[in-house]
Amino acid sequence: MKSKLQWLVKGGVSSPCGFRASGIHAGIKKKNNARDMALLLSDTPAVAAGVFTLNEVKAAPVLYCKRRLTRKRNMRAVVVNSGCANACTGERGMRDAERTAELAAQALNVDAASILVCSTGTIGKKLPMPAIERGLPMAVSALSNKGGHDAALAIMTTDTRPKEVAVRIMVNGRPVTIGGMAKGAGMIHPNMATLLAFITTDAAVQQAAIATCLKAAADHSFNCISVDGDQSTNDTLLMLANGVAGNRPLGPGHKEWKSFCKAVEEVCLKLALMIVRDGEGATKLVTLRIKGAPDARQARAAAFAVANSLLVKTSWFGADPNWGRVLAALGRSGCKFKPDRVEIRYNDLLTVSKGQPTDYAEKDLHDLIIRPEFTISANLNAGKADFTAYTCDCSEEYVRINASYMT
Amino acid sequence: MKSKLQWLVKGGVSSPCGFRASGIHAGIKKKNNARDMALLLSDTPAVAAGVFTLNEVKAAPVLYCKRRLTRKRNMRAVVVNSGCANACTGERGMRDAERTAELAAQALNVDAASILVCSTGTIGKKLPMPAIERGLPMAVSALSNKGGHDAALAIMTTDTRPKEVAVRIMVNGRPVTIGGMAKGAGMIHPNMATLLAFITTDAAVQQAAIATCLKAAADHSFNCISVDGDQSTNDTLLMLANGVAGNRPLGPGHKEWKSFCKAVEEVCLKLALMIVRDGEGATKLVTLRIKGAPDARQARAAAFAVANSLLVKTSWFGADPNWGRVLAALGRSGCKFKPDRVEIRYNDLLTVSKGQPTDYAEKDLHDLIIRPEFTISANLNAGKADFTAYTCDCSEEYVRINASYMT
Repeated sequence: MKSKLQWLVKGGVSSPCGFRASGIHAGIKKKNNARDMALLLSDTPAVAAGVFTLNEVKAAPVLYCKRRLTRKRNMRAVVVNSGCANACTGERGMRDAERTAELAAQALNVDAASILVCSTGTIGKKLPMPAIERGLPMAVSALSNKGGHDAALAIMTTDTRPKEVAVRIMVNGRPVTIGGMAKGAGMIHPNMATLLAFITTDAAVQQAAIATCLKAAADHSFNCISVDGDQSTNDTLLMLANGVAGNRPLGPGHKEWKSFCKAVEEVCLKLALMIVRDGEGATKLVTLRIKGAPDARQARAAAFAVANSLLVKTSWFGADPNWGRVLAALGRSGCKFKPDRVEIRYNDLLTVSKGQPTDYAEKDLHDLIIRPEFTISANLNAGKADFTAYTCDCSEEYVRINASYMT
Repeated sequence: MKSKLQWLVKGGVSSPCGFRASGIHAGIKKKNNARDMALLLSDTPAVAAGVFTLNEVKAAPVLYCKRRLTRKRNMRAVVVNSGCANACTGERGMRDAERTAELAAQALNVDAASILVCSTGTIGKKLPMPAIERGLPMAVSALSNKGGHDAALAIMTTDTRPKEVAVRIMVNGRPVTIGGMAKGAGMIHPNMATLLAFITTDAAVQQAAIATCLKAAADHSFNCISVDGDQSTNDTLLMLANGVAGNRPLGPGHKEWKSFCKAVEEVCLKLALMIVRDGEGATKLVTLRIKGAPDARQARAAAFAVANSLLVKTSWFGADPNWGRVLAALGRSGCKFKPDRVEIRYNDLLTVSKGQPTDYAEKDLHDLIIRPEFTISANLNAGKADFTAYTCDCSEEYVRINASYMT
């Protein structure tokens, strides 16, 4: 229980009222019975929003969803396939994404314009349309309000476990549920294409407000994590709100708008941290708090310079108390600061003061960084901006996984 | 022989006339007899220039050298120690760098203001001054015009082999020699602090021109390589020209200025490529040619996004023909281009045309990327700017080395 006003419930995307989901084997992945198609349906039209990769190279389903969502029409369903990213597939890829939506619309007997489509898997491979066509009716018959877990399984690629969460809050005296699922074993994996996340809620939300809520939640969750600093062609975060809970539609004027947005952010952050913990080959979750940067942009740059430093990440894997690499990564981040004012703490242990090592006991630091989770706080004493990033270590297993993904 | 006008000679920094060098064990590294102090002496005053790390966190010897070189006085010697970076050591570190110069000046009987000092090794450790004091007289007595190789050995940290080169050109009908040595097993290694390189020449060069020559050479060599994308607190490239060859002083008005600058660049590039080949755990040298970027800055950003992508580097290690990761790294680089215009070649093999895979034979591509050296050329067709970067793959060995450097 997070607080009196918000509590965790079992489940995921099919937990909010009026949502059903399924996850089945359509034959896109070669492995027998491996789930590779998820379907998410709102029984009634839902307002929707999306946040997408900034990569110049965008997969066909990303372009498709962006186009659909700019029209601000209500949505009914999301089709997700794993095993093929439908990226770098040209006009054929776009036709395949559109055709997937049409096939889903027929099977569900709804308008094709109310269907969103996502893909994750290998880049440069055409979507196997016969498998999609065969799979969709199966996915429709399997739809259930207990199907969220199967859907979370079906969107996995190199993930070692499914990622789902649901929380409940009260809005206008009525329980409102927010559910979510995600996949991604790197922040971003160009070739296994990546981070997908889906948020559902039975809350009524104003069409004009849902995008703001989702963008803010993404900025404090998925945009704060990094596994390897790469960014994929397929990254997509979608949110659907169907209003089945019957509350007065939420938006900036509503007295519970802030607590609703906070709950959506919580769901996103929980999913984001699950992704970092399940980072390819990861053994540690590290929270990086940058304090006292000159501005927000520099605070963020400093945090990600550390989060993405291969030298820092490998030293964490080796439980090596190597604050020198942290300081050097901060120094090359583009963030302006005076080295002789920097303070670095591992959890509460002060290891660097005024840019130089304190007389901390090596053993204390070592005992701390062998743990599976710890926090590094760097106070640059150069301004008032803060930023927190979440990341993981880099192990030999990461190299093994990524040296042999395609071959 | 490079051409009629420039040829390779055996040796390194002590090959140019009037330079002597040595490399001895002073006791800074714990391992018995491991060389850890190099001394480089010009018998006559030499004009000098330096290029230094842009990291906000600069080691004491970097600050010391920058200060010395801004005064544009002639230099006589360089003292280099390995095993301790003298970085993050505050005022004490600066006093130790100055004291090292004074001790060297006494032992050589020259002015302390004509001594440059470099350090490489662990960050945050104080320079062991008793070892420095004991070592310097030994280094002075060992000075020899055949001592370049010992010096190249003495500046190594995790390098597996020494890196030195010398070339000769004719200037005003006289032979002029340019020698060099370098260390660094990553472009930049915060904690073993990193890339050091030294260029000597017996050419006479104008004081006002040497810095321009060195900066241009660095931009086409050391600034084009990356092992892991990190940047150290100690990176230093120094050049000394003592004029013993007796040519008319080289500078922009001299008809052989360009070929001299080209030869310096060649020496730097050869050293830079030795560093990449000896990158920690590296098994492959990869040349990345970006063509057709909108401007030089974007061309460079595109090249380094690929060079530093962990997913790309691990796929090279696995000899995985993963052009999708290359394209995705280009896409997130900040370089503007249209994905459906991109062309990618591995050596001469066209694998991506108009942003989509060609019908290349998998075997042809595989046969190519199992080689220890290959070139990837990406034509973005978005402008006229080109940039070439040199990098290596990332292996499990890299993680092993860096997970256990300090412990």
